[in-house]
Formats: sequence, structure tokens, C-alpha cells
Amino acid sequence: MTHSLDHQPDPRLDLVLERTIDVPRERVWEAWTTPEHLKKWFTPAPWQTVDCEIDLRPGGAFRTVMRSPEGQEYPNVGCYLEVVPNEKLVWTNVLTPGYRPAGVPAACPGEAFAFTAVITLASQGNSTRYTALVIHGDEDSRRRHEQMGFHDGWGAALDQLVALAKSGMR
Amino acid sequence: MTHSLDHQPDPRLDLVLERTIDVPRERVWEAWTTPEHLKKWFTPAPWQTVDCEIDLRPGGAFRTVMRSPEGQEYPNVGCYLEVVPNEKLVWTNVLTPGYRPAGVPAACPGEAFAFTAVITLASQGNSTRYTALVIHGDEDSRRRHEQMGFHDGWGAALDQLVALAKSGMR
Repeated sequence: MTHSLDHQPDPRLDLVLERTIDVPRERVWEAWTTPEHLKKWFTPAPWQTVDCEIDLRPGGAFRTVMRSPEGQEYPNVGCYLEVVPNEKLVWTNVLTPGYRPAGVPAACPGEAFAFTAVITLASQGNSTRYTALVIHGDEDSRRRHEQMGFHDGWGAALDQLVALAKSGMR
Repeated sequence: MTHSLDHQPDPRLDLVLERTIDVPRERVWEAWTTPEHLKKWFTPAPWQTVDCEIDLRPGGAFRTVMRSPEGQEYPNVGCYLEVVPNEKLVWTNVLTPGYRPAGVPAACPGEAFAFTAVITLASQGNSTRYTALVIHGDEDSRRRHEQMGFHDGWGAALDQLVALAKSGMR
């Protein structure tokens, strides 16, 4: 009765980063779900992730604080929607922990855009087929996210994740 | 790792309808999750629910169309977040099916308010402790929902559900 959704990206509204990476999916999962690891790779240098809270269950908190090279801090909060170990991680910034609607600013024009992210991991031998799907509510949000540098940004962060995993998460 | 949340209502932001009803929880679940049943009780008469789509899984569609006594139709769309048969049903109108953010109008001032609803069912002999928790993102949304007649409306709909279940869902 509760089969998982098959997410079909809509090119008008969604952004996708898909890549095969030379790291087993268990390590990718660990990097995404352990605060001390996530802080080391989540934001492309010289930006930093200086704080992270992970309550790994549907409705649980996913909080990060990013710091710009100039020292400005940007808190982000969302909640997890699906947690399938080593396979699928879904969260959104439209809901805060406990599924509470995030309120007006996050979803109104001119502000940060609303999105849901779906990370999917599939084993290919010792490698992982890694797919990050980012789902938006309207074309303008997708366009702004793309112009902000989605592909370079998420790609550079993934490079950092791979380097971290290969170093044994140190 | 993925324990269910314990929802603690915030009286400033949330609305709660709690009642013991003389119907086994399996019947309540059936009434909430079967379109043909839901259409018979979901809106207090003389309003009607004239259409209903239920895709009962996280991220799946929950759509209804309500019709006013004057014949005006009001479509509503959201998606399920948690589906625990006979125990807990969670959905939100902040996300549309596939977890897509609902877009600007639903969350901006002056429009319909954003909410997440958590229906919890607990057996008490042949009766059910029924709790409907409605979670809002800000006080204004809670206040408008309350002024729209939350308690009378959800209460009258629940009376209709109980009557339907006692009639054998006919």
C-alpha cells in the first residue's frame, strides 16, 4: 500500500545532478546523515558549514548554518520526509521540524525559494550512482536556483564529499 | 533510527479536536482513506465533497473538491506525509503530490492558509480516541482557521463520519 514514489523530473521545474562516484553508497549515506561529516563537505570552499543538526526521521529537523567568506552566517532549516538508509533521503525547506509550515517568507517572491530535495543512491559495484533531484513549485524558483549556481555548487560539494569519503571521513 | 514523532501541540499555532467516538478505529481509518466513503462525510452538510483522489503513500496525492450550497466548487490538493494504517495519517497542503512545493498563493497572506494535519487513532475497547491536530506556520493562520469555524466544522464532519461508520459505510 505504501510503495515509494517514482520521481519523474520535470525539466521546467526541477534541477538534477546525476553522477557515478567512486565511493560505496554506505559512505555517501554516512556523509549525508552525520553532522560532523556533513560540515566538512556540504558547502563549496571557501564557504563553510559551521553548524548542523540532523534528526533522521520523517518530520525530524535538518538544520545547517552556512558561513560566507566574509563571515556572514545563513541559517537553513527544514525537515526530513523520507529516510531509507543507504537508498533515499528526502527533505524540504517548506516544512520545519514536526511538519510545521515554514511560514510566509520562505515561499514568497524575492525571498529564498521553496524546494524539496531527493537524494537517491544505487550501488554499481564499489561505486554509487548518485542522483540529487531538486523539486521547485514554479519556474521562477527553478530559474533562480539555477542562476545561483546549482550545478557548480552541488557539484563542487559532491567533489568534497567524495574526497572526504576516500580519506576515511577524516 | 526512524521513530515516529511525538507531536506536542503549540496552543499559539495549532488547533486540536480530540474526542472518543463509538466506532472501532479500523472503520475510522477506512472512512478517511477510501474516496467513496470520504465523500459522504468530509464536509458538513449542506456543503458537499464532490470529488476525491487518494494515493495512500508518503508523497501521494490527497485531492478533494468541495461544493458550496450555491454550487461554487473549491478544489484542495495536498500530499500525504505519513501513512500508518489504523494509527496515524499525516498530510499537508504545503506540498503537492510528489512533494512539490505548493507555490506562492497557498502560503501568502490573504490566501488560504498553509497547514499540516495529523490524525491519530487509538483503540479504547470498541471505541476510538480520535485526535485531529492541525499545525500552522504562524498565529495569523491559526486564528483565521479558528474563525472560519474549525471546531464546529471538523466536529460536524466527525459526527457525519461516526454516523456513516455506524450505518456500515452505506
